[in-house]
Amino acid sequence: MDNEGRMTRLASMLRRRGVILPSFEIYGGVSGLVDYGPVGASIKRRVEDCWIEHWTGIPNVREVDSPTITPESVLMASGHVGEFNDHMSECGDCGGVFRSDHLLADSHDKPDSLNASQLDDEIEKIGVVCPSCGSKEWRGASPMNLMFGTSIGAMGKARQAYMRPETAQGMFMLYPALFRHFRKKLPFGAVQTGRGYRNEISPRQGMIRLREFNMAEMEYFIDPESPPEVDLGRWGSRVVLIPDPEGSYPGEKKISFAEAFDSGIVRHPTVAWFLAMTLEFLEKVGIDTDKVRFRQHASTEMAHYASDCWDCELAGEHGWVECVGIANRTCHDLDAHREHSGSSQLRGWRQYETPRQETRDALVPIGSVIGPRFKEMANEVTKLLGELVEIPDVLPFNLELEDGSLIEIDEDMVTRKTEQVTIRGEYFTPHVIEPAFGIDRIIWHILDHNFNEIEKEGEMYTILSLEQPVAPFDVSVLPLFDKDGMGEMARVIAREVNSIRGITADMDTSRSIGRRYARCDEIGIPWAVTVDHTSLEDGSVTIRRRDDQSQVRVTVEALLTHLSSGAVPELF
Amino acid sequence: MDNEGRMTRLASMLRRRGVILPSFEIYGGVSGLVDYGPVGASIKRRVEDCWIEHWTGIPNVREVDSPTITPESVLMASGHVGEFNDHMSECGDCGGVFRSDHLLADSHDKPDSLNASQLDDEIEKIGVVCPSCGSKEWRGASPMNLMFGTSIGAMGKARQAYMRPETAQGMFMLYPALFRHFRKKLPFGAVQTGRGYRNEISPRQGMIRLREFNMAEMEYFIDPESPPEVDLGRWGSRVVLIPDPEGSYPGEKKISFAEAFDSGIVRHPTVAWFLAMTLEFLEKVGIDTDKVRFRQHASTEMAHYASDCWDCELAGEHGWVECVGIANRTCHDLDAHREHSGSSQLRGWRQYETPRQETRDALVPIGSVIGPRFKEMANEVTKLLGELVEIPDVLPFNLELEDGSLIEIDEDMVTRKTEQVTIRGEYFTPHVIEPAFGIDRIIWHILDHNFNEIEKEGEMYTILSLEQPVAPFDVSVLPLFDKDGMGEMARVIAREVNSIRGITADMDTSRSIGRRYARCDEIGIPWAVTVDHTSLEDGSVTIRRRDDQSQVRVTVEALLTHLSSGAVPELF
Repeated sequence: MDNEGRMTRLASMLRRRGVILPSFEIYGGVSGLVDYGPVGASIKRRVEDCWIEHWTGIPNVREVDSPTITPESVLMASGHVGEFNDHMSECGDCGGVFRSDHLLADSHDKPDSLNASQLDDEIEKIGVVCPSCGSKEWRGASPMNLMFGTSIGAMGKARQAYMRPETAQGMFMLYPALFRHFRKKLPFGAVQTGRGYRNEISPRQGMIRLREFNMAEMEYFIDPESPPEVDLGRWGSRVVLIPDPEGSYPGEKKISFAEAFDSGIVRHPTVAWFLAMTLEFLEKVGIDTDKVRFRQHASTEMAHYASDCWDCELAGEHGWVECVGIANRTCHDLDAHREHSGSSQLRGWRQYETPRQETRDALVPIGSVIGPRFKEMANEVTKLLGELVEIPDVLPFNLELEDGSLIEIDEDMVTRKTEQVTIRGEYFTPHVIEPAFGIDRIIWHILDHNFNEIEKEGEMYTILSLEQPVAPFDVSVLPLFDKDGMGEMARVIAREVNSIRGITADMDTSRSIGRRYARCDEIGIPWAVTVDHTSLEDGSVTIRRRDDQSQVRVTVEALLTHLSSGAVPELF
Repeated sequence: MDNEGRMTRLASMLRRRGVILPSFEIYGGVSGLVDYGPVGASIKRRVEDCWIEHWTGIPNVREVDSPTITPESVLMASGHVGEFNDHMSECGDCGGVFRSDHLLADSHDKPDSLNASQLDDEIEKIGVVCPSCGSKEWRGASPMNLMFGTSIGAMGKARQAYMRPETAQGMFMLYPALFRHFRKKLPFGAVQTGRGYRNEISPRQGMIRLREFNMAEMEYFIDPESPPEVDLGRWGSRVVLIPDPEGSYPGEKKISFAEAFDSGIVRHPTVAWFLAMTLEFLEKVGIDTDKVRFRQHASTEMAHYASDCWDCELAGEHGWVECVGIANRTCHDLDAHREHSGSSQLRGWRQYETPRQETRDALVPIGSVIGPRFKEMANEVTKLLGELVEIPDVLPFNLELEDGSLIEIDEDMVTRKTEQVTIRGEYFTPHVIEPAFGIDRIIWHILDHNFNEIEKEGEMYTILSLEQPVAPFDVSVLPLFDKDGMGEMARVIAREVNSIRGITADMDTSRSIGRRYARCDEIGIPWAVTVDHTSLEDGSVTIRRRDDQSQVRVTVEALLTHLSSGAVPELF
């Protein structure tokens, strides 16, 4: 099929069919904001559900959910207040504001690597004209913070805050609760899906660069001295990697993840594991794996918090687009929050293989007090006092039990002694490996990769070949005509299909059956069930398969059992 | 069990167990913001999924998803910029800011019905002292808008916006797409879940009054002249209603929804239907229906947009709390947006039973031009031109086809004639009935209603008797000891359980089996599966039922098949 205009036809279909639409259009729209319509929202929910299921399949990974409004103190510590900036240039004549690097996109290789005065020099040298009014009078480039600001509370008591630029910070804030939940045993991870915000100066490219977007991130906390063992052999297929151009292995390669890790291209075993998990997820939701590559950041382009970073890029109508970032954020975030907040709860515990003997202060429990006072918890209290690494100077103090509750230890309960003590381990700041997914970009590429234009009876015909787990509906129920009882029978079937856990039915009664099949194919519904005159006589229906448009006639009962066991293909 | 301190113990459990926690606590916290932790986030996802499934079970209801950032123009039209206010009083001495009605809570019946000068008079008369500093010097009460403001874009081009106070406006914006999706046939509905924002001056009561909260709303669009027929007989049980105290039926009643509608207490059939659907949903997610009542708003307390409004109130540790609002918003919103935006797309089409004859302008299609030009669409074009109600004064104009695409009709294609035409119907502004759910408040009450403190072996013991569909995990897999292969076997079982669609397993290997059972009971996991030495020999496991702590031994295969068919109770 002719590819010219394909992107326009795809975007037009998405809008016409209620998949993805520009937001607030009756008020002229706001660039960088999109709606998921009555077809798209189901797709989005299902992609997110697949994502959550994929990552929480790892036994020590749990979902959390934190606010989007974030107080300034958190984002000061994380570096976003100071460093989450784009440079922009304002036209001296018309007041138009543009990203400085975008103004240089055609004339410079890496305009986003330039600082303010370099940008100004370059803009003047090249004689960039204002895209709005044609003027060459530019005010100097200045950094603009990309967060949406707001304030919490009223008047004199108002407090500066921002809409979160990533979900990650919410998970760092929850670290103490996670540490407790996972019984203080690393590694463990938290996942979160939800909105992120980025006040783009000039959003472009539809779904690719949004001001409000849907993210899905995991923060996986590990002990850097003993990262989890990973069997990369599970993922045998070869994948395109583009290693750091300034590193030891420049140049595109097609190798397996195990080879990439063994040869040192991927520097960290957990990063290698998540690269593989990412590819597996993308395949599940219907991304064409021939249009996937992983690109390692050069040290000059790495985010302020990352020590090793890979982009997973997907190819489509917008070229290669970063859709997932996998970064080894090391101890940057937890250390920064510890320093800024003074909290002692942002740490992990590392047991020594062999306990060490040291001479120092200890609090020796007095059994005759501890026993009666704490009853069945006395043993735990005694054990915890023996393991105490940081001996408080002043009593009473709060001792944290294994279930997170606090008990007060006062002077009557212990004797302070300088003695030979057994040190069983030490505290440290965990490292964190983060896979961060841009859900909207992934949905765009799922749609792009599955948008097939074929020729049918001399005309262009569209089939959206979505995998069933991310199709907007599993089934469309179509009465041949909405009369003679066919409509009622279809409604009953739709209701029964909907009552199957995780399976949803659409129903469509308007216009010719051919046009309704075409609509089903165009929005990616894998199965169309038709209720016709024969159905009224013998209770059978036809099932039509989207991808080859073949049909079989089965009983309603067979339809329902095969739908619930995921075995509809076996009917063909 | 003694109820004293129950709320404190519940809140403490929620925090200790990672269900719900105060946000940003290491930075001192922000009141009105909460986190769902590693246990709570699963509960929240499942409650939302149940909600979506419940309402999209109605065949003409679909999910949509729109941005939280909303441009000012939308919220001017909706009335939120002008009217979404609380009055507040600022202390002249310490600068503390308080809701004026809260200052009068103990001394006035309905302080939220007072205007600014009435509030000032009352505060002075009673001699209210500042809760912070004890001063009586108050600055005059002034209205504060409760939306979080922000701005889109940069510098001179920045545009005022707000974080949405409700998800509803996003659905009104999507009305044209919904109208197209549902083939221009009313009634139809859209549902949406997601964040809403309300910049409370002084948030209180934990989960009840949040600054950022989770909503779930449906906008159901109907033709007010022919609202959908509803069979209320499906819901036979009687429920507590408190009709409008100023209306014809004052005083609490316990009657069925059908009786309430037939007797005129509930004024609209769709409102009655949604009251019943709401109760059904609450029952599904484990709300105690003896702690539910529906209260009709008096006309003086109705929101600025509503013509009839019911609150669904739930009883719990905070007393009776509004958790769902069901409002007949009439044509208020769509009319306001039509006026403010000038859009002609916010309307429905009502077919006359008998077409009318009228003499007026018509555009008569010229078949010899229309035919060759539009080919297979010519019939549709001819039909639509014949049905045109508003004849454009100037040509060319855009005609909207049934699939939402536009074609241009120019002067060559039609002849303008004054003639006898058949008018088949008319446009009108649909009415909208809205059930709006506060998800956080509902989750709080699910937890409250299912938090059972019993006595066990002389001590207090907690069981959270969550319904399985909203339990954080379906199963906890517990190796008796994490050695001799029991840990490995448990991990394999957990993985197999997780691979069942919609079923999730937790795993817990720390500490004594008794303490792990206690934790499962406390966070509401319905089934605990124990892997012991016998398991290693014969492949069997024990299943323990949370609610009566009885156990049975079954094969792993039986466990898995019963879990996937939802039939675990049959094993007991």
